[in-house]
Amino acid sequence: MLTGGFLTVRRDVVALPDGQHATREFVQHPGAVAVVPILDDQRLVLVRQHRYPVDRVLLEFPAGKLDAGESTLACAMRELAEETGYTAAEWAFGGEIVNAAAYSTESLWIWFARGLTAGTVKLDAGEFVETVVCTEAELHELDRAGQLPDVKTIIGLHWLTAWRGGTRAMSFTSAGEHAEQETRTAPMMGQR
Amino acid sequence: MLTGGFLTVRRDVVALPDGQHATREFVQHPGAVAVVPILDDQRLVLVRQHRYPVDRVLLEFPAGKLDAGESTLACAMRELAEETGYTAAEWAFGGEIVNAAAYSTESLWIWFARGLTAGTVKLDAGEFVETVVCTEAELHELDRAGQLPDVKTIIGLHWLTAWRGGTRAMSFTSAGEHAEQETRTAPMMGQR
Repeated sequence: MLTGGFLTVRRDVVALPDGQHATREFVQHPGAVAVVPILDDQRLVLVRQHRYPVDRVLLEFPAGKLDAGESTLACAMRELAEETGYTAAEWAFGGEIVNAAAYSTESLWIWFARGLTAGTVKLDAGEFVETVVCTEAELHELDRAGQLPDVKTIIGLHWLTAWRGGTRAMSFTSAGEHAEQETRTAPMMGQR
Repeated sequence: MLTGGFLTVRRDVVALPDGQHATREFVQHPGAVAVVPILDDQRLVLVRQHRYPVDRVLLEFPAGKLDAGESTLACAMRELAEETGYTAAEWAFGGEIVNAAAYSTESLWIWFARGLTAGTVKLDAGEFVETVVCTEAELHELDRAGQLPDVKTIIGLHWLTAWRGGTRAMSFTSAGEHAEQETRTAPMMGQR
């Protein structure tokens, strides 16, 4: 196992269905959370930042990695506040996605937040993130134009549109009401 | 730089906007392609396989990594044939997504294929992949139920639905007609 300042890579020898053995190398990731923050006027709060590995400035829903022992909702509340300053009165769980299943253990849990109140951004040292407010229509236009490539952002947008269109259910309740359910049901998959 | 049997991890020291320096570690990935294969009866061809890093059996659109110097369309044709046996008369480029921008250079280019003809599966050694045919409605039901977590598959499905609904444009032409355009426009981002 190689442990770096940030990435942990693990190599396992696995038995295949035919009895042969093969090597599997993958990033061991704590999992992450993304938030779709919905303002009272229905516009959405996003962040814009340079992503070094792809050398691009990306427009994304706020997101970040789980701290050890942290629930996905607690992480969602923390990342929303740190990156945008907003706190939310109501939360709904959208779903869990896996974004690099061939070589990473990462899952992303997507939460939707509404009843937003503005506050003070608290970025980590070395974090340079700009808050951007967009309408749902503007984001669909960016998606069609190939200018919204981040997967959690595309999926959060499409799930939001499906919910508003009545084809996807989401249940918004206060963070307190979620806490017990969250403890029971998430994370839904074992982290190696 | 650590070079393993499969993953290459790179560590750079980067200058931040405030003049400080920081370390960035990331997976150096060749990029990948996913295919949304549309049968003449409008059903879709997917593959089911165990993904070791997340320890789950995932239902996914066929996909695979770019070979050196390979165009994204050539990769799409190769992966579709290898994993499902199908060849396609017409192709349309759907879009490019980035799935792990915080720690991987990977981009995924999503192609749509129609005019499908069945053939023989040619899996790599150690590859255990089952072909599955689903309707668009069945996939949306799985997505709503949290049983379609793979990001390229969710995004391909939603783009397909937007195209069928008339809110997203796609231009299907023969592979030959695409070749020149492909050379000019993709890959659209620099691979480090």
